[in-house]
Amino acid sequence: MSRSASESAVITTARRAREAAAALAPLPRTARDAALEAIADALEARSAEIVEANAQDIARARQAGTPDAIVDRLTLTEQRVSAIAADVRDVVALPDPVGEVVRGSTLPNGLELRQVRVPLGVVGIIYEARPNVTVDAASLCLKAGNAVLLRGSSSAYASNTALVAVLRDAVVAAGLPADAVQLVPGESRESVHELMGARGLVDVLIPRGGASLIKTVVEQSTVPVIETGTGNCHVYIDESADLGMAVDILVNSKAQRPSVCNAAETVLVHAGIADRFLPRALAALTEAGVKVHGDEAWQKAGSSAGVEVAPATDEDWATEYLSYDIAAAVVPGLDEAAAHIRRWTSGHTEAIVTRDTAAARRFVSLMDSTAVMVNASTRFTDGSQFGYGAEIGISTQKLHARGPMGLPELTSTTYIVTGDGHIRE
Amino acid sequence: MSRSASESAVITTARRAREAAAALAPLPRTARDAALEAIADALEARSAEIVEANAQDIARARQAGTPDAIVDRLTLTEQRVSAIAADVRDVVALPDPVGEVVRGSTLPNGLELRQVRVPLGVVGIIYEARPNVTVDAASLCLKAGNAVLLRGSSSAYASNTALVAVLRDAVVAAGLPADAVQLVPGESRESVHELMGARGLVDVLIPRGGASLIKTVVEQSTVPVIETGTGNCHVYIDESADLGMAVDILVNSKAQRPSVCNAAETVLVHAGIADRFLPRALAALTEAGVKVHGDEAWQKAGSSAGVEVAPATDEDWATEYLSYDIAAAVVPGLDEAAAHIRRWTSGHTEAIVTRDTAAARRFVSLMDSTAVMVNASTRFTDGSQFGYGAEIGISTQKLHARGPMGLPELTSTTYIVTGDGHIRE
Repeated sequence: MSRSASESAVITTARRAREAAAALAPLPRTARDAALEAIADALEARSAEIVEANAQDIARARQAGTPDAIVDRLTLTEQRVSAIAADVRDVVALPDPVGEVVRGSTLPNGLELRQVRVPLGVVGIIYEARPNVTVDAASLCLKAGNAVLLRGSSSAYASNTALVAVLRDAVVAAGLPADAVQLVPGESRESVHELMGARGLVDVLIPRGGASLIKTVVEQSTVPVIETGTGNCHVYIDESADLGMAVDILVNSKAQRPSVCNAAETVLVHAGIADRFLPRALAALTEAGVKVHGDEAWQKAGSSAGVEVAPATDEDWATEYLSYDIAAAVVPGLDEAAAHIRRWTSGHTEAIVTRDTAAARRFVSLMDSTAVMVNASTRFTDGSQFGYGAEIGISTQKLHARGPMGLPELTSTTYIVTGDGHIRE
Repeated sequence: MSRSASESAVITTARRAREAAAALAPLPRTARDAALEAIADALEARSAEIVEANAQDIARARQAGTPDAIVDRLTLTEQRVSAIAADVRDVVALPDPVGEVVRGSTLPNGLELRQVRVPLGVVGIIYEARPNVTVDAASLCLKAGNAVLLRGSSSAYASNTALVAVLRDAVVAAGLPADAVQLVPGESRESVHELMGARGLVDVLIPRGGASLIKTVVEQSTVPVIETGTGNCHVYIDESADLGMAVDILVNSKAQRPSVCNAAETVLVHAGIADRFLPRALAALTEAGVKVHGDEAWQKAGSSAGVEVAPATDEDWATEYLSYDIAAAVVPGLDEAAAHIRRWTSGHTEAIVTRDTAAARRFVSLMDSTAVMVNASTRFTDGSQFGYGAEIGISTQKLHARGPMGLPELTSTTYIVTGDGHIRE
């Protein structure tokens, strides 16, 4: 495609990213790592400038009456900028995914076949609020040899503009094309729509943020999308569970950090242990500040224990609360628990607590989710917990990547086939 | 979603496939292989019935004045049905992709992490003319534990209906749910559109066929798509090439089977060898019945050799001829060849003929395609040539699968994480 006079700023940006990606692809690890080192150094050297720009976003947010917790997520201090720079250095230390031979063989006719990891090309990230994502996403994309288009929240526009200016200067100083890192121009929804239509220029879009943003991108984008993050996670307490372990895992899954996608939203309990488990669970959940939305069995147990249990409706089974709330039901058995989960899950993480190996195997085989925990908290579905280093998101789709996405998930592969004049008969 | 009175037949079919997929997922290899054996046996036992149904399609095709070559592709004989049954038995013999541990480790806290291949779930295949694809696609999907929705060409509707009836009976006889294999009802385009909107019921759509079908599905589907097959493939003859080898690879790439996606459509020649190479290439291409659409250099060489060379336009660089035609240009060097290819390629297969190791490395590093051949014909990009057994198509996209798609590409993965009460601190 050639550039036309009427081309939008977003499409021009995407075209520049495509050119930068072509220049990045043949570069060896040393060149990409040098750019990341330059970025880390520049972030520290210019942190005052970044914090100053961030102050504008904070002032705007306060004026708009933004809640303190969100203002805090938006806030950059010199210390936080240093921590972001340290994260970039951690990315430098990760193994290079580019060039890894994934499969290889010599064919019967002597042709040498190698399937090799290569950069995806141009990666677009659409994300909300937190400006540290700007640097995290850019550094992971660069490490994997990709050009990145960053479309952050308008509430962090000044911060992101300052950060991207620092990143681009550092990239250029290291001899890479500036357009390897670009902020998508425009603060309106229109720029997201243009990005979604840039098929052929952008290789993949990764939306990170609220469910409505992700739904919009998944349904409307002609650019391929990796769906991330909605987590309606379940904990099933089997008849054979160690009840103390079950209470600990339930409370940890729900309440250790309720605002994240791998927090539990529903607990299902085998009928055979309900009498013994529900009172203990109610006490522990109440202690942790969690409100239960339960079926009749949980409501009865609540009455006996003097704890208010709200009646659960279908909406509760479907909801990702992201708060100190949990839906709760008693089920006749494991298969019914699995059926409930398959009906309502967003496909993120499910857990079983059991002492029975057959029950564990059967539960795992009946799930259709990104991760299944056996006697462990749902909160472990996480790139850094899995030992993958930084993650660019947790994919809840089945194609390309499922689960925490690290560097290998930011690559594609190509076949290199070497012969000495081979032709097909 | 619950079934509503107004639900279309296609959506009902997809919902049944989803239920069948849930039943298939926990089954071991032995159960899936038994179903495939039953299919192979049933195809042979009922081949008369299949050939009879096929005769209706052939009669319709002849009445409509369909060209002989296409009627031939549509035709089933008892012998061809036997060959299809033999292909199913080959699939039985392939390694089971389901359950393969792709990655695994014990985390520092003792959690055991395994990333394991699981079926995708419901796979929809949209394909044209050839009824053997019905059985190939169904057997590969079943082998990988998936339910399959088959949306074949209306011109093969009677054949496909008969084949799917045989497949379903065999699947049931082997104890699997009949709805593991279904024909999508309706012969109209509308049924394709409904399939494309069945997000949440269908996990992936694989369109196989003409460029316009693929474009429609890629642009309009909300179900994730794997793009297959368009092949605007290039052969670049480097300055250092062995000219005899170059002629052989060029003619093989173009003319060994011009109607397929891995056939070459453009040849680019280094200016330094044009004087010596063009006359030899023109003679060999003409001998093979190939018409050249060339730039000025090729036209001049044509005049000298008394061979008609049509003037090439931008349309020629962009065209996947799939016929005895080839676009041809002389380029100043390797980098210009790479630039031409990156501009016009569909990203399928490119080849370089060279004796220079540095040129080979540089060409490979500059390509952004599914496969790059060094001193080999483009015709080798093929699942069976690569030793992967049957293929369900050749993906030309970068996400999930790139290149010939075998059984592993028909799976997703899930994480199984096992602890003994692990919680996050």
